[in-house]
Amino acid sequence: MSVTRRNALGAAVVAAIAPSIVRQGQAAQPAATDQAPGFYRFKVGDLQVTAINDGVAFRPLDGFIKNAPEADVKQALAAAFLPSDKMTIPFTTLVVNSGSKLVLLDTGNGNSGAPTSGTWMANFKAAGFDPANVDTILISHFHGDHINGMRLKDGTAVFPKAEVMVPAPEWGFWMDDAKMAAAPDGLKPNFQNVRRVFGPMAKDIKQFEWGKEPVTGITTIAAPGHTPGHTAFAIASGSGKLMVMSDTTNNPALFVRNPDWQAVFDMNGPEAAATRRKMLDMAATDKMQVSFYHASFPATGFIAKEGTGFQMVPVSWAPSI
Amino acid sequence: MSVTRRNALGAAVVAAIAPSIVRQGQAAQPAATDQAPGFYRFKVGDLQVTAINDGVAFRPLDGFIKNAPEADVKQALAAAFLPSDKMTIPFTTLVVNSGSKLVLLDTGNGNSGAPTSGTWMANFKAAGFDPANVDTILISHFHGDHINGMRLKDGTAVFPKAEVMVPAPEWGFWMDDAKMAAAPDGLKPNFQNVRRVFGPMAKDIKQFEWGKEPVTGITTIAAPGHTPGHTAFAIASGSGKLMVMSDTTNNPALFVRNPDWQAVFDMNGPEAAATRRKMLDMAATDKMQVSFYHASFPATGFIAKEGTGFQMVPVSWAPSI
Repeated sequence: MSVTRRNALGAAVVAAIAPSIVRQGQAAQPAATDQAPGFYRFKVGDLQVTAINDGVAFRPLDGFIKNAPEADVKQALAAAFLPSDKMTIPFTTLVVNSGSKLVLLDTGNGNSGAPTSGTWMANFKAAGFDPANVDTILISHFHGDHINGMRLKDGTAVFPKAEVMVPAPEWGFWMDDAKMAAAPDGLKPNFQNVRRVFGPMAKDIKQFEWGKEPVTGITTIAAPGHTPGHTAFAIASGSGKLMVMSDTTNNPALFVRNPDWQAVFDMNGPEAAATRRKMLDMAATDKMQVSFYHASFPATGFIAKEGTGFQMVPVSWAPSI
Repeated sequence: MSVTRRNALGAAVVAAIAPSIVRQGQAAQPAATDQAPGFYRFKVGDLQVTAINDGVAFRPLDGFIKNAPEADVKQALAAAFLPSDKMTIPFTTLVVNSGSKLVLLDTGNGNSGAPTSGTWMANFKAAGFDPANVDTILISHFHGDHINGMRLKDGTAVFPKAEVMVPAPEWGFWMDDAKMAAAPDGLKPNFQNVRRVFGPMAKDIKQFEWGKEPVTGITTIAAPGHTPGHTAFAIASGSGKLMVMSDTTNNPALFVRNPDWQAVFDMNGPEAAATRRKMLDMAATDKMQVSFYHASFPATGFIAKEGTGFQMVPVSWAPSI
């Protein structure tokens, strides 16, 4: 924003000096270079929730869906009006201000992700937040795009005061040296990254079980399959409810319509698909608001049953909170 | 944003003085009071387009749809996950920077709309724009929520340098004193408001016909029915295309699914419905990006055929331009 304002000011000065030249050749207002800041606030009962965008990544289609022909995937992407030659994966985390605590649900890519990601901190600050004020971090699972925001590549801890709470079954799996030794080569970097991020603070990490309320108003929900300890979160306050689906789907534009499709990142594909269908069915039946980590920003809406799958209906953007 | 930052700073000072009190009772980070600024940029070929939100208005359901039972309307609103006890009407205008001109497509409510509207200027400035830099204003039709942004209640002209271009058939209808005299009482305030807004600059107004290109890259499209001269705009640059639907629908969450429904604001209901179906069918067939004045912000996406009507698929939010 500051860059744009400087540009606008510069252009105004030029216009005052030589208005005819500027007006004939180009608009006095130069083209902008910045998108709007990627944060969106909404209420869940008395809780204030802020969606924070961390950019987007793209992946080749080849092998992305483990159990569908690439032609079908391309067709589904085109039907969702997404580029059909690659997979589009947006990232959006949530900040919950409960009044008594400032809580993060996952932390984004930090500076370890794709060049088109990593905008989380700029958007977090644009929303008026300070990383030093984060009280609690709840982690859904241990993939890098969810935990790397906690620790920069150079080792810096980003949220110095925050207590970090993680799913017990996720900790049990990834911190098990025997499992790391037995893991296929492709999975070993994930084990190593978990140690890089959590190692320096391992003694302070708090583990939570499913079906508990580690922070008042936020209940942990079993959603295994994507990873062994993958967790969704049910946020409740008064009559307000939000089901934070985490990675119950990759981009819902694809997986809500085709819930049986298994993504390459789903470690246990059939279990992930079963969890996905169960969670989507619950969301549709209860008409509850949902958030998805990999939906188009602001990544929150509702689920309706449609055909053999479901449809995501984004929220109607609210100009005030 | 500045309010939030001041609050955050204030809280930080308090925390430094009495950290234990603050940390026990409440989050160091106070609840925010502001939504993210309502602007969204995207490209149409080489042109830069910015959607600017002007808030929202609500209306009673009673009589809003002229040719459907209220129970059906409530059901359709609930299916769209909108409040079903009232009509939700968002406002979003477009700014086009062609490089040589800064162009507005409609101007929002100014300070004449509902208290929940009127955020246009704050969002326009947040996007880095200056009203003094607007070169051209293209008007789709003469309802107050499209033209009042040009002139404040006290008579102030908001865009002093802009040339204003309006649909010739719209000008012919609303500026005809005989038509005003013959109009039903409910419509007379609209005639009077047109004179209030355009009167002081009537001699400078440029009228355009349909099928013309009053600004390079922006073609006027006949879309009558909502008003006699209601106009859509086709924006084209290189291979990029955007169909600006104006009020071809009121909130598309309702009217894209039910294109034959006629809104109370559709002056010629059957003609408006015929135009709506024709334009939606064209958008779906050509898979072109569309913008709607009354869609949920950022009010741009795509149209797919579905059942006896259509479905709107919002764009996937782009974190950069």
